[in-house]
Amino acid sequence: MLQDSHIALAHGNGGRYMRELIEEIFVRHLGNGNLDVHLDAAPIPALSGELMVTTDGFTVKPLEFPGGDIGSLAVHGTVNDLAVSGATPWYLTLNAFIEEGLEIARLDRLVASMARAAREAGVCILAGDTKVVARGEGGGLYLATTGIGVRPFGLRLGMAAIRPGDCLLASGSMGDHGIAVMLAREEFGLRGDLASDAGSVLNLTQALLPFSGLRFMRDPTRGGLATVAQEIAKSSGLRLRLRETAIPVRDQARAVCEILGYDPLYLACEGKVIAVIAPEQAETALASWRSLPNGAEAAIIGVVETGDPLVILETELGGARILEELEEDPLPRIC
Amino acid sequence: MLQDSHIALAHGNGGRYMRELIEEIFVRHLGNGNLDVHLDAAPIPALSGELMVTTDGFTVKPLEFPGGDIGSLAVHGTVNDLAVSGATPWYLTLNAFIEEGLEIARLDRLVASMARAAREAGVCILAGDTKVVARGEGGGLYLATTGIGVRPFGLRLGMAAIRPGDCLLASGSMGDHGIAVMLAREEFGLRGDLASDAGSVLNLTQALLPFSGLRFMRDPTRGGLATVAQEIAKSSGLRLRLRETAIPVRDQARAVCEILGYDPLYLACEGKVIAVIAPEQAETALASWRSLPNGAEAAIIGVVETGDPLVILETELGGARILEELEEDPLPRIC
Repeated sequence: MLQDSHIALAHGNGGRYMRELIEEIFVRHLGNGNLDVHLDAAPIPALSGELMVTTDGFTVKPLEFPGGDIGSLAVHGTVNDLAVSGATPWYLTLNAFIEEGLEIARLDRLVASMARAAREAGVCILAGDTKVVARGEGGGLYLATTGIGVRPFGLRLGMAAIRPGDCLLASGSMGDHGIAVMLAREEFGLRGDLASDAGSVLNLTQALLPFSGLRFMRDPTRGGLATVAQEIAKSSGLRLRLRETAIPVRDQARAVCEILGYDPLYLACEGKVIAVIAPEQAETALASWRSLPNGAEAAIIGVVETGDPLVILETELGGARILEELEEDPLPRIC
Repeated sequence: MLQDSHIALAHGNGGRYMRELIEEIFVRHLGNGNLDVHLDAAPIPALSGELMVTTDGFTVKPLEFPGGDIGSLAVHGTVNDLAVSGATPWYLTLNAFIEEGLEIARLDRLVASMARAAREAGVCILAGDTKVVARGEGGGLYLATTGIGVRPFGLRLGMAAIRPGDCLLASGSMGDHGIAVMLAREEFGLRGDLASDAGSVLNLTQALLPFSGLRFMRDPTRGGLATVAQEIAKSSGLRLRLRETAIPVRDQARAVCEILGYDPLYLACEGKVIAVIAPEQAETALASWRSLPNGAEAAIIGVVETGDPLVILETELGGARILEELEEDPLPRIC
């Protein structure tokens, strides 16, 4: 381990301290046959299929929360964006913006968590960069990851493929990540044992790829299910009708939302998938999800209809309301 | 343009404000046929050659400085890392960490500058992500870019190829970026008109690729020439002998360094290349650089020798001193 206990500006200077930080924390955990810290750019080993790329930034606060931390989140988030596009993730690049004063033991834990998540998802880190910013100019640690994967040639998923009659599937309960992070902040005087759902959805997305009627998949992160539904309605020009009673929401999440006036449908998940699939394949696809440990609570939550591009929520009491686009920010630094 | 004049947390919430920010600032400037903001992951159009990837974070303060800004720097920095690996850069992904309160007109300027730099370097943005952090939790704007390019199959550049007798070439004056940023901070009560050298080095690297004796190229950013020389000595196990009088340093940079006690050889460049090349090709390679506008001041600055892996600087007065590895951080947030 490094001799110092906390990050200093010198750990970002391009010299010895930075080299030690990179070798003793980042390379020690994330090292693999393809990672060479002496390269300006790294070769991407050959892959077969259509190459796909995605990128995501992570600013979650607190850095560690029940069910995850910023390190695992930065792997899963990017892996999941590739997964819902139909791709198999292979490689990541990593940027770390480290605030002066961050405890090095904590950084070590977070990078170790990132390494574990990468191993689980079967991805390896090809390149990385660290920057150290002065105390008061950062949030402890911000991460950005860029993912590269391949998807089978000819696979065409997208909102343009969505047709009236298609079904919406959710792979599990909505809003768990948002609630877990909110409780971990202890700002509201609430306590609970709800853990974030942060995790890889690759097994869920791969399970649906064989279905010819699969139109589109997305992981409902910032803005939650309601935002994904909004985007589908806007892009496809079709109406979405969701059944509130069918949407899985944990009792504890519902209770916290009632106390604080939040709507769980707008809160982030980090290990769930929303899929749109042709009606005749919806039940079989659902069964395939339910056979997976992270899909046990999957449900058909709504349908696509012709009509104005709105999202209609049929409420528990038999009424209906429009799910509007998110305007106010319920929870900054959620991911 | 957005209705608001400054960034609010709502611009990061995944809802309408965020969509407007992305469409009206980022897509308006950076949009291209390959950028689809509705995708979770974007296809990488087919490229021929060995795929290369690199990533870099940018935290420069102030965000705008003579000769550049964080937007152009985030493009050039990553383009240059690909270029010195022998690759032609093609695609970038972009992460923006925006602090609440950043003036939107300024963000617009910075993203426009990034778009200009990308056009000049011939790269296009394939994917991006924005996060907004609360006031006091960021430095205005941090950027991370990941670059993808291709290099000719069979091209093998690297420190392992370096041999005793090889020559070191510098493409121009050292330390200009560091000095320009330092003066722009106005912390020292100094003023000057030295501009940063921030720019693409792609024409410089491409000019040397035809030389069979080319061993290795690197752009001396954080830590400057001295740090690149250190890395070469450490990795190759060979001694480097640099001639101080041969190393191009602008008079103004030298003067500022003398006043503040800095060594220009440790200060960052953002548009220069250090190349190692076989001795019999050094003069021709030098001539080829000197014919380029950004290589007019190129020079042969030293040689590789057998001996302990140290960097020796032959001083102006005929003495010699060892250039040590950088320990203290002269200038945080320089790039």
